[in-house]
Amino acid sequence: MQEGSANKRGAIIIGGGVGPMAGVKLHEKIITFTITDGSDQDHLDLIHLSRSRLIPDRTRFLHDLQGPNPGTVMAELVASAVTAFQRPEDQMPVSLAAGVPCNTFHAPLVWNAFTKQLEQLHAAVKPVHMLDQTVEELRQRFAPGAHVGILSTIGTKESGVWRNAIQEAGFIPLETDQMWTEKVHGAIYDHSWGLKAKSPASGKAKAMLQEATEYLINKGADAIILGCTEIPLALREGPFRNVMLVDPVSSLARALIRTAGAKSSPFLKASY
Amino acid sequence: MQEGSANKRGAIIIGGGVGPMAGVKLHEKIITFTITDGSDQDHLDLIHLSRSRLIPDRTRFLHDLQGPNPGTVMAELVASAVTAFQRPEDQMPVSLAAGVPCNTFHAPLVWNAFTKQLEQLHAAVKPVHMLDQTVEELRQRFAPGAHVGILSTIGTKESGVWRNAIQEAGFIPLETDQMWTEKVHGAIYDHSWGLKAKSPASGKAKAMLQEATEYLINKGADAIILGCTEIPLALREGPFRNVMLVDPVSSLARALIRTAGAKSSPFLKASY
Repeated sequence: MQEGSANKRGAIIIGGGVGPMAGVKLHEKIITFTITDGSDQDHLDLIHLSRSRLIPDRTRFLHDLQGPNPGTVMAELVASAVTAFQRPEDQMPVSLAAGVPCNTFHAPLVWNAFTKQLEQLHAAVKPVHMLDQTVEELRQRFAPGAHVGILSTIGTKESGVWRNAIQEAGFIPLETDQMWTEKVHGAIYDHSWGLKAKSPASGKAKAMLQEATEYLINKGADAIILGCTEIPLALREGPFRNVMLVDPVSSLARALIRTAGAKSSPFLKASY
Repeated sequence: MQEGSANKRGAIIIGGGVGPMAGVKLHEKIITFTITDGSDQDHLDLIHLSRSRLIPDRTRFLHDLQGPNPGTVMAELVASAVTAFQRPEDQMPVSLAAGVPCNTFHAPLVWNAFTKQLEQLHAAVKPVHMLDQTVEELRQRFAPGAHVGILSTIGTKESGVWRNAIQEAGFIPLETDQMWTEKVHGAIYDHSWGLKAKSPASGKAKAMLQEATEYLINKGADAIILGCTEIPLALREGPFRNVMLVDPVSSLARALIRTAGAKSSPFLKASY
């Protein structure tokens, strides 16, 4: 066996379309962070599903609890991709990892439906939890009791997904107050100048997210999680006034690469 | 039916992994160029296959004529994705388009094997030819007899794919001479400073590609095709000293969107 062949066994499924560009960013990071022998052929096999039309809005589902669960729908699509990987004429990948680049998708009501449905469909795939992997990387760098700030939308804040993950890891979560959460939310959703409306990011969205970051730094944050996949479009991961801004999509990319059996560039080197 | 529902019928398959990052750039352009109602759900359904390990190197295949034809292999993968779109529990997409973001893949020996195998597998998908679509967009802007320069690797130049497509459209192809083709090839493949080795692009690679561009402008080019998917990493599409640099991946993205039945932002607006 030649050097680098470890990369040739595993595979990754991206459950994308939530939103579509977040999947592209995850896909790009997987390619960038995978350590290969320099050839196209040494990259991990990957199937990227972006079927937004079929996946209900996560925030709305959590709010109304009506209609199909986005987790169940996504599991069915991922399971169909697993089947494509298992065609008899292909070699069966040893290790198949799946990830979904959406913060709100990791609310227990959605995530648990996703993993349960994958089990029921006997899908031979390991789902990788973006928030747990992010917090796990933080544990490698920060001692228990460190203060971890969270920038997120109103919906993600209300769901408590980041607050709970951070607390369970032994860190102290720092959240924005209502006024600042509304400002962060506006920087993402505002129809005239928000990140979902304007590409590249408007100066107003950038300035507002920087101010929110400074607010969390003044509250004592040791690290800050960019807890919405749109935020890194305006605020780069990496050091900011000596505080580390962390993009969970990067943590998910590294964890998917490792779970699929390949080598990933490490936490700090990969991003900064 | 509500406004924008035209986007809800069609779907796109990206035959990616050739190389992996070219697929990501195509995917990103499809999202950026699709005109939607602003919601995730209005984007086209998309399955992006990136199974580099299974797809033989195109240049090597054309040189040696040994081993499986990359076109046949890609057709089998695309057909399996078509099957995933045709599950009875989904709505069948009216219009399914497939594209492969690799210049050399469009050499007749590979492309014809691709389309023939899709037919034999009865895959209900319309393959979209990147080079033909690029030349078609040029015809909308330039009169017959215009001079169209080509920047490409040695392998793509030898295959003649661009030269033939440009001639058939009634334009006059301008190619680099042997010395300049070797310089362009080096800017892409050199293991220490080439585009496949260094990300972001090295100053040396950028400078060399700019010089090659100026060489073609001095030969009288009215437009220049960035005829290798790596070149736009160093040289942006758009106007350069009053000559238009054209990224064929952008033309492919727009054609896939239209073929799938959605609205694309137009040629100039989409890119520049």
